[in-house]
Amino acid sequence: MAAAAADGEAIEGPTNPMVTPLLTDLYQFTMAYAYWKAGKHQERAVFDLFFRRNPFGGEYTIFAGVEECIRLIANFKLTEEDIFFLRSSLPGKCEDGFFDYLRGIDCSDVEVYSITEGSVVFPKVPLLRVEGPVAVVQLLETPFVNLVNYASLVATNAARHRFVAGKSKALLEFGLRRAQGPDGGISASKYCYLGGFDATSNVAAGKLFGIPLRGTHSHAFVSSYMSPDEIIDKALPYSDGSGICEDFVSLVRTWLRKIQLTDSLQNSFVETNQSELGAFISYALAFPNNFLALVDTYDVTRSGIPNFCAVALALSDLGYKAGGIRLDSGDLAYLSCEARKFFCAIEKEFRVPGFGKMTITASNDLNEETLDALNKQGHEVDAFGIGTYLVTCFAQAALGCVFKLVEINNQPRIKLSEDVSKVSIPCKKRCYRLYGREGYPLVDIMTGENESPPKVAERILCRHPFNESKRAYVVPQQVEELLKCYWPGDSGKKAVELPSLKVTRERCIQQLSQMRPDHMRRLNPTPYKVSVSAKLYDFIHFLWLNEAPVGELH
Amino acid sequence: MAAAAADGEAIEGPTNPMVTPLLTDLYQFTMAYAYWKAGKHQERAVFDLFFRRNPFGGEYTIFAGVEECIRLIANFKLTEEDIFFLRSSLPGKCEDGFFDYLRGIDCSDVEVYSITEGSVVFPKVPLLRVEGPVAVVQLLETPFVNLVNYASLVATNAARHRFVAGKSKALLEFGLRRAQGPDGGISASKYCYLGGFDATSNVAAGKLFGIPLRGTHSHAFVSSYMSPDEIIDKALPYSDGSGICEDFVSLVRTWLRKIQLTDSLQNSFVETNQSELGAFISYALAFPNNFLALVDTYDVTRSGIPNFCAVALALSDLGYKAGGIRLDSGDLAYLSCEARKFFCAIEKEFRVPGFGKMTITASNDLNEETLDALNKQGHEVDAFGIGTYLVTCFAQAALGCVFKLVEINNQPRIKLSEDVSKVSIPCKKRCYRLYGREGYPLVDIMTGENESPPKVAERILCRHPFNESKRAYVVPQQVEELLKCYWPGDSGKKAVELPSLKVTRERCIQQLSQMRPDHMRRLNPTPYKVSVSAKLYDFIHFLWLNEAPVGELH
Repeated sequence: MAAAAADGEAIEGPTNPMVTPLLTDLYQFTMAYAYWKAGKHQERAVFDLFFRRNPFGGEYTIFAGVEECIRLIANFKLTEEDIFFLRSSLPGKCEDGFFDYLRGIDCSDVEVYSITEGSVVFPKVPLLRVEGPVAVVQLLETPFVNLVNYASLVATNAARHRFVAGKSKALLEFGLRRAQGPDGGISASKYCYLGGFDATSNVAAGKLFGIPLRGTHSHAFVSSYMSPDEIIDKALPYSDGSGICEDFVSLVRTWLRKIQLTDSLQNSFVETNQSELGAFISYALAFPNNFLALVDTYDVTRSGIPNFCAVALALSDLGYKAGGIRLDSGDLAYLSCEARKFFCAIEKEFRVPGFGKMTITASNDLNEETLDALNKQGHEVDAFGIGTYLVTCFAQAALGCVFKLVEINNQPRIKLSEDVSKVSIPCKKRCYRLYGREGYPLVDIMTGENESPPKVAERILCRHPFNESKRAYVVPQQVEELLKCYWPGDSGKKAVELPSLKVTRERCIQQLSQMRPDHMRRLNPTPYKVSVSAKLYDFIHFLWLNEAPVGELH
Repeated sequence: MAAAAADGEAIEGPTNPMVTPLLTDLYQFTMAYAYWKAGKHQERAVFDLFFRRNPFGGEYTIFAGVEECIRLIANFKLTEEDIFFLRSSLPGKCEDGFFDYLRGIDCSDVEVYSITEGSVVFPKVPLLRVEGPVAVVQLLETPFVNLVNYASLVATNAARHRFVAGKSKALLEFGLRRAQGPDGGISASKYCYLGGFDATSNVAAGKLFGIPLRGTHSHAFVSSYMSPDEIIDKALPYSDGSGICEDFVSLVRTWLRKIQLTDSLQNSFVETNQSELGAFISYALAFPNNFLALVDTYDVTRSGIPNFCAVALALSDLGYKAGGIRLDSGDLAYLSCEARKFFCAIEKEFRVPGFGKMTITASNDLNEETLDALNKQGHEVDAFGIGTYLVTCFAQAALGCVFKLVEINNQPRIKLSEDVSKVSIPCKKRCYRLYGREGYPLVDIMTGENESPPKVAERILCRHPFNESKRAYVVPQQVEELLKCYWPGDSGKKAVELPSLKVTRERCIQQLSQMRPDHMRRLNPTPYKVSVSAKLYDFIHFLWLNEAPVGELH
């Protein structure tokens, strides 16, 4: 569970202890030295953290990672060991006074304004506005961008998978083994849950964040058994404690024969795999209330499903309810339908109520496209276990968040580029989301800090920041200010209270449900509009002309 | 620096403290319980860790990550807190005796055989062979696969970038901000260095692993200055301490005018950007011996380069040598050539020896393709700073390492699949690399554990494991056994000595240089051959028939 910072309570450090002030680019320290040498290090700077394009060809992004940023700055302190290392690592010989300065810095002079974690966000709008002494805020650039980039990317990926899978399906994150490093795995579990997944297989993430855990068994477990004869302790008590079945193995074998001999089940199997049968029985003896079986080690329809059903029916005799099966290869649409048919036939044939509703989990190399294809073909899968494509964000492995100086010493700054999409929007800004009559967000608008905010029912001109001809009047039915103070907190607290992961997850799900559907669809989604006020528009273009060099043509 | 395990010395834990026995999938623990319930948990199992396809459309992979695996098992111990958490997380009520068992486990009964870290490796050949009590070895599956997958993927990506860039270029890893989470960043720095990079920008990785650090300054640094008038302390001592230049700013301005008025330099600029000039002077005052300038904040040819040259010439007057420039946008081929021309013209015009050789670093969204395109166009870049595409392995964000049971209780096991490429190669095996007359590796061959090893100058039949018709006789000139014991070490040590990252990096570079060039080329590389002995071939197919179910056609 995310530790909330109650009154006076200290905020815990980042989840990963490797997130320290040294987790930054060398140039942040060389710049800090240059600022210090120039006596400029205390100048008050304002930086915006934002991205330029939504990932995965979509038109929305889920913002995540700010909690970890706050944990970092709440505990931001260079150790003597860090300073010793820096002394030997900076190019050239830096003056001692600089290291004394480094020794003293923390983030008490820094202010962080942020969009609420778990919100739906859009390009160009600052996710974070960070203000403070220029040298200190520069040091935060790399870790902040690192902590937000992947968190937002993978949360967005999770939300997109949820969108395709539909609300009724269980989504399980199974990516730890393929993630980019250990905390690629741990962050993935955290932020996939935030983005709408239901559970993870990652035990450490379950412990750290209170995420529900799920898992079955592996192919190796199946092939580690030779046959049911290996099983020595064959006894299983009845579910209600009323007695003991002394030979559960025989009971399963009896059921298997019954299944085999029942014509209406249309079996095509002669003999099921005995090592698989042994493994299933063993797993059922260990977890009679939670028997789940991976049925594709040898042959799904001719071995895995009959073996599973025999064990499940034997469990049912003793008052237990089996959980279901997992399919990890082959044609998941076809196999899930075959499995469902078989379960229903068993329910009917042997009068076992509910047997047809057995949970079917599918897991092999799933992604947005395969989920979509499964939906189109029709399938009977209840739960999806998704790994590689989800956690590595295979379809687009990076989000391009940047951190740009927009003001220093109350002077607005602009970053120019020959590529217009890379020109930054200067000034310390306020950002609002304007909602329309139907309750959908219509447009985000950025204004200068001192402009009066948009008002409900009052017409306001929203301009594209760089395209002169794109503008529209909007009469908002609701106005939401996006950036809220996260650090320092008011009334003596060091930060605003950090909500739990569950609360953030609920916000995310609620925000997604509030969006106009055409922004969310997978194919040709409509871009959501991001704008600036007329005043800010004029100022951007004044500053641009002012800074751009004038050439001479020869 | 990687801590080597000297005599009797304990091996440090994994680099990331989050790598603990809980960093695993839940099902590893549910299976452990089922094994324990069945009295099967101590059965000796052999697992192979391998991948099925080389990444990035190539025909080779660099193996990395084993050091971290050894650090994990050398310190493998569940804490009371872990056990408490597991008790509440396993489905159903597990018996107390199981938790007593978990409390007692460590990896003293486990053996790990591994290919040397930093080696060039190929599909299907086990990178690691892990033997031990089945319940314990299963727990290791997830962290081992996690630790090897990304490490090998990113090391391979680095090696591929090195291959395209050529040996003479400096390669700098600048990916921390875009990496998948904090230790996506730290692992990236470690394994890119292993794969042949020269340095990183990541300070924490520099500290942890002794990797050289590099960095310049950012666009924000440039735009944080308004003009050189901001600079208060304008004095700079001569390099040799012989005196002081009281007004370095004026000296720079004098040089800028000289450059402007020199017709032979063919300037197209009227006035350079003053905020940029201020930033450059300030950076030079801080690092007169290591002055590097990012020259593309406003306009490379009309502002950045002339400003840089003016500062560099002023530094030269005082006996300092400027480092060079960084280009971070635009047409890098063209701009680097323009910069080089200008530097050479300055060298000639003002007689500053070596000025033309100024280092040019390029950084914007570089990857294998853009490096290749730059080579084809011709460029003057000396060093490449590579981030996003390198560290996130954008071209292919995951390597599919798997961990398969190949033997239990001395019984060989096979994992079948309708997809032949997914059938596992059973048996505890030995693996050899056979070298030809020209010193190139010819083929890797796997044999049963008790077969006699291939001998130099003796003909041996190498068979494709699954394709009957693919086989060849080989007469090796050299035979290398690939799997070496990493854990436990002999002569009382707990593990073999873990080589330093530098040594592993050298091995990698040496191994790459030893490969036949047609396996390494980017376009249509020749697949390297991986084979099994005739005996193993026969055994695989015997086992396969034995395990596959026999159907009936209706």
